[in-house]
Amino acid sequence: MSSRFGNILQIQIFGESHGTAIGVAIDGLPAGENIDMEMLTAFMARRAPGQSSFVTQRKESDRPEFLSGLYREHTTGSPLTAIIRNSDTRSGDYTPFAERPRPSHADYCAAIKYGGSADMRGGGHFSGRLTAPLCIAGGIAIQCLKRRGIDIAARLIQVGKVQCSTFSPLSVTSDDLNAARTAPLSIPNEDERHAVENLLKDIASEGDSVGALIEVCAIGIPTGLGNPMFDGVENRLASALFGIPGVRGISFGAGFEAVKMTGSQHNDPFILKNDMVQTATNHAGGVLGGITTGMPLLVRVAMKPTPSIAKSQHTVDLAKKENTSLTIKGRHDPCIGIRAVPVVEAVLAAVLLDLLLEEGDRHGIN
Amino acid sequence: MSSRFGNILQIQIFGESHGTAIGVAIDGLPAGENIDMEMLTAFMARRAPGQSSFVTQRKESDRPEFLSGLYREHTTGSPLTAIIRNSDTRSGDYTPFAERPRPSHADYCAAIKYGGSADMRGGGHFSGRLTAPLCIAGGIAIQCLKRRGIDIAARLIQVGKVQCSTFSPLSVTSDDLNAARTAPLSIPNEDERHAVENLLKDIASEGDSVGALIEVCAIGIPTGLGNPMFDGVENRLASALFGIPGVRGISFGAGFEAVKMTGSQHNDPFILKNDMVQTATNHAGGVLGGITTGMPLLVRVAMKPTPSIAKSQHTVDLAKKENTSLTIKGRHDPCIGIRAVPVVEAVLAAVLLDLLLEEGDRHGIN
Amino acid sequence: MSSRFGNILQIQIFGESHGTAIGVAIDGLPAGENIDMEMLTAFMARRAPGQSSFVTQRKESDRPEFLSGLYREHTTGSPLTAIIRNSDTRSGDYTPFAERPRPSHADYCAAIKYGGSADMRGGGHFSGRLTAPLCIAGGIAIQCLKRRGIDIAARLIQVGKVQCSTFSPLSVTSDDLNAARTAPLSIPNEDERHAVENLLKDIASEGDSVGALIEVCAIGIPTGLGNPMFDGVENRLASALFGIPGVRGISFGAGFEAVKMTGSQHNDPFILKNDMVQTATNHAGGVLGGITTGMPLLVRVAMKPTPSIAKSQHTVDLAKKENTSLTIKGRHDPCIGIRAVPVVEAVLAAVLLDLLLEEGDRHGIN
Amino acid sequence: MSSRFGNILQIQIFGESHGTAIGVAIDGLPAGENIDMEMLTAFMARRAPGQSSFVTQRKESDRPEFLSGLYREHTTGSPLTAIIRNSDTRSGDYTPFAERPRPSHADYCAAIKYGGSADMRGGGHFSGRLTAPLCIAGGIAIQCLKRRGIDIAARLIQVGKVQCSTFSPLSVTSDDLNAARTAPLSIPNEDERHAVENLLKDIASEGDSVGALIEVCAIGIPTGLGNPMFDGVENRLASALFGIPGVRGISFGAGFEAVKMTGSQHNDPFILKNDMVQTATNHAGGVLGGITTGMPLLVRVAMKPTPSIAKSQHTVDLAKKENTSLTIKGRHDPCIGIRAVPVVEAVLAAVLLDLLLEEGDRHGIN
Repeated sequence: MSSRFGNILQIQIFGESHGTAIGVAIDGLPAGENIDMEMLTAFMARRAPGQSSFVTQRKESDRPEFLSGLYREHTTGSPLTAIIRNSDTRSGDYTPFAERPRPSHADYCAAIKYGGSADMRGGGHFSGRLTAPLCIAGGIAIQCLKRRGIDIAARLIQVGKVQCSTFSPLSVTSDDLNAARTAPLSIPNEDERHAVENLLKDIASEGDSVGALIEVCAIGIPTGLGNPMFDGVENRLASALFGIPGVRGISFGAGFEAVKMTGSQHNDPFILKNDMVQTATNHAGGVLGGITTGMPLLVRVAMKPTPSIAKSQHTVDLAKKENTSLTIKGRHDPCIGIRAVPVVEAVLAAVLLDLLLEEGDRHGIN
Repeated sequence: MSSRFGNILQIQIFGESHGTAIGVAIDGLPAGENIDMEMLTAFMARRAPGQSSFVTQRKESDRPEFLSGLYREHTTGSPLTAIIRNSDTRSGDYTPFAERPRPSHADYCAAIKYGGSADMRGGGHFSGRLTAPLCIAGGIAIQCLKRRGIDIAARLIQVGKVQCSTFSPLSVTSDDLNAARTAPLSIPNEDERHAVENLLKDIASEGDSVGALIEVCAIGIPTGLGNPMFDGVENRLASALFGIPGVRGISFGAGFEAVKMTGSQHNDPFILKNDMVQTATNHAGGVLGGITTGMPLLVRVAMKPTPSIAKSQHTVDLAKKENTSLTIKGRHDPCIGIRAVPVVEAVLAAVLLDLLLEEGDRHGIN
Repeated sequence: MSSRFGNILQIQIFGESHGTAIGVAIDGLPAGENIDMEMLTAFMARRAPGQSSFVTQRKESDRPEFLSGLYREHTTGSPLTAIIRNSDTRSGDYTPFAERPRPSHADYCAAIKYGGSADMRGGGHFSGRLTAPLCIAGGIAIQCLKRRGIDIAARLIQVGKVQCSTFSPLSVTSDDLNAARTAPLSIPNEDERHAVENLLKDIASEGDSVGALIEVCAIGIPTGLGNPMFDGVENRLASALFGIPGVRGISFGAGFEAVKMTGSQHNDPFILKNDMVQTATNHAGGVLGGITTGMPLLVRVAMKPTPSIAKSQHTVDLAKKENTSLTIKGRHDPCIGIRAVPVVEAVLAAVLLDLLLEEGDRHGIN
Repeated sequence: MSSRFGNILQIQIFGESHGTAIGVAIDGLPAGENIDMEMLTAFMARRAPGQSSFVTQRKESDRPEFLSGLYREHTTGSPLTAIIRNSDTRSGDYTPFAERPRPSHADYCAAIKYGGSADMRGGGHFSGRLTAPLCIAGGIAIQCLKRRGIDIAARLIQVGKVQCSTFSPLSVTSDDLNAARTAPLSIPNEDERHAVENLLKDIASEGDSVGALIEVCAIGIPTGLGNPMFDGVENRLASALFGIPGVRGISFGAGFEAVKMTGSQHNDPFILKNDMVQTATNHAGGVLGGITTGMPLLVRVAMKPTPSIAKSQHTVDLAKKENTSLTIKGRHDPCIGIRAVPVVEAVLAAVLLDLLLEEGDRHGIN
């Protein structure tokens, strides 16, 4: 098992939902990076529960305690570790799931794999709560990238069947990214947001949940970052993004739409623009053959509906070996995609910083 | 840079399209595995050019020469290396692309990254030809998996706008897999195949190309294989599959369809069936939280249209710094997705065997 | 930078000597391993300061707090994290060293590498104190190995010029190991111990320090563990053992003595003994070509003298760019080799468990 | 198993002594590095058999054939692969060793580990012959380092009980390195060399062999290269050097001599010299806490006597399960340490280049 990713920048996530603490150990951060705590707190707040009526109301103290690697608000160059103590741990809500696995949760897989030893209270190490320490790492990476001229934001571009606007693939600006970051539900357009809110209200009132599609964008990336074959931007990003619970698909640029397109439609012609080589379209989403083109990097992440729903569901009693049903109590997000938006930003930032640290010498970036 | 993947089973691809040879070094294969050369040759033939009127007619001798790791048709336990000599290297077709990069090829990225040192003749190390050694590794992995009760096949489920049948997510049999493997164009249904053939004829006659969607399935995988977070089945598979040139998206089970679904639709209820725990639906595609459920593993891979098309395209003359156009000569596949089908099988096999070797002790498999 | 080692069992050390906490995140421990806390505490006490008059009297609370990966005294299968809060942090003792680097400490290297951002109070991340979390990991590994039939102990076989007895290479028993583990100074022979004590008293009274040689032994290892070339027992062990501050040399079996020997002296003839293949001598130290022979594994670790001595020493004032001198205050171990003995055991255990987890399927061990 | 090392520069060795070919795949070489073939050939010749009366007279064609990664004598940035065909494969000399393992060879370990499937003819993948492709990789790395101002050479400093001069730890020059590189037997001093030659003659005439001690030195390394704990210069170098068959011990600077020393003797005082911070002594051997000090890097490598000797030896017939004896025919090096000298240089170069590529951005080196 490995809850770790990264080559130079190595991010190790640890913790179980209802254990003592969750946290992250980050090895490989450059020394001397200033961490703006206010900015980090604001970033983490976007993921935290209780932010709106459409996310779970459980109160979790998501304030990280830094144990190492930080001195006078600067990174020391040695492993940075931060933890978040668990407090709101109503284990009663979860205990029966060891015996009656929740559909589309990891309960059953974990029961088989760990032979009953896993601490699966609250989803254990599989819980979406583990994305909090991931956001500590990503929030730090975002600050490091900003100093290197790279800006990142994600937005919701679909919830259920409601489609919302995407980034404009050719000309994303920092203002566009900021609009996405600061908009409620990460949907800048008000009409679209209302449509999504109405859907979410309906879904929540039915005790159901719904899937979502996230688009994340990075601008300011130098051309030539990444590698062919198995260690390119796509490989690293896809591998890390699938670490976010609930992700079912990843695509770059035109993605699955490319299936329907012809080459003459999909190919991005090169053009000189402001004396720079650019592409006239950006179906590639900023990456060709594992290597960045210098155009906006555009990635889509398909999130499944929250598996915890209020409706009664069929399952199996593993001890008694018989079919049964279960009803999941407690309050749950009607759409895990909403709180996953900053997590997707966090992962993208961590992967890009890792690549930059590995290849920065070629680009004069340190 | 790293043209390598795998943890225990480490697959290193090397070679450039028009260099001396391409090949693969495979470290970590168990000792004593019999390699059936006829079966391997048959597998590689599915990827080779010249198999039908819908794939490129360039003749490449794809017969591997084994340099190490094989003794009396059995693996020795030390690194297995195989190479394929390059012969059909009409460099004249490609030389100008160093200066006038082909749209949606890696030419431009490579020019920036390697400062002109890369051997980009024929696409160099970015060429689809590098999937031949990948198929040597995967073809061997397929044989190792078969001995361990795991069977794999992929099929074309969409070409352009023509949709074809998919695997039945709940009940894939070895016969289904075999039908996919042996069908022309990897499309078992004759009507669907004719529709695709007609599309491909039209596309080819226009000097254009088209995208495709591949579905790959594995059956016989034990429950409990994989890990949460960053080292699960999804992470490893996605990372490796994006190593195939032209892949733009990866999804598991319902994938991007999950965005539109509600939790009550998407969740897979557990049921007892033949005294075994199964799921009543398989929207998860056989993997939950990074770990296999024991249900058929189902992955979709979106392939972009072949970027090399006969139509004139806009590009930039990098030396003269001016807009220009280029026409790509030579014969090219109208749909790279066709020949990618066995490559997808190869990658899935390599990733699954790696996981099995790492975790096999828990499953009594060696 | 990476303060991490291991392939399947990945051990990430973090913390700075005078930061908030030091600790370890262990990824890859099997689920369901019982951790005997009393045994772990006893093991860690052997490394802790203040155990005898020959080790530093600084009081450090070395009791680990477990944050994750442990539930009802059993491992959960997800990352196990434990921390030790720093308390005795008299920073005043160390501050000037940033400007006037201590000879044979990492102060100067760190100043250059991290440009002044490292938290070098108390040696920072380079401090011998970081071996405490290493002993948490190793102490757990020792318990896991014991259940798998493998026993480990180390002893001091030389301090300065005083030579002590070594393990008998052919016939180490669990009693021998236990004698080494429980003896004061890890020197079972009383006369030898007195000679060492006298030396240490002299050394300490002079404000000086002295080097030491440690021998570590493991018995019960299956034959065939490890690999040729770069991933064998020697490679992994040497790499990890050099992670212990102060280690200057590593050897296996006859080690540097082999230089003087002839082949006919050094070669270990194979013999049948109790119907088992053994060797008549064990100059190999239990490992040939990276792979265990089944004979006792014997490794020697050369420790340099404690670099912190009371005597005045020459150094350079980095700010003023002039030669100067410094005197290190505070109490320091006259011989870091003493407290390094259990640390060497810890590292050996961690490396062997990692190998067993990776290859255990071949040996029927899980 | 993994016959691979390196992080950014990844070197994969493959091949068996009497298989089709041996070779190396090098991933991560920077693009645009000129490879001087004459220099590489000269370097490899130092390792090749048949160079003097004191090394084996078997004729091996050690001329590498480059398959990929090289274009117009420059690296392309994609994996560089080179192979050496095996020709002198008198298998008859080795066949019986599968049943009657040679003392202090890996025959027995391999028999157990690979269950008889390994191709152990000529030592198989354990053969010293595998150091030839290692020298291809190292010879290339040496050229890359030279362009970056780093110079490397090794020398024999002891053979059996005959001690020879070492490098002067404080003031090694390129002339010193060159003298070591070009001297017969890598022993520049004529008297010392004669003493060694006489010893070797005696040893050879007795059908015996003898151990050796190698010292390798690198100068021009920037201060601050490497990392604390498990990924420092010592860890990486020791791990890679133990990959050379026959290595039994590794030490840095004073090494095992440090055991006998006091802190006041061993500590290296810092001094300003030519306006640069240096150390007045160099017992550290150029590396403190995993990080280079900028002083000459000095490493010692203890080589065991050639295990293949002409004398009759005891062994076990594994099939018949009875004690027996064996006599090894064929011509063998009386001292494998002699031909190991350039191999040690090769490994040091590969490790240093890997570190430089990873951290070069901090030092303005690319």
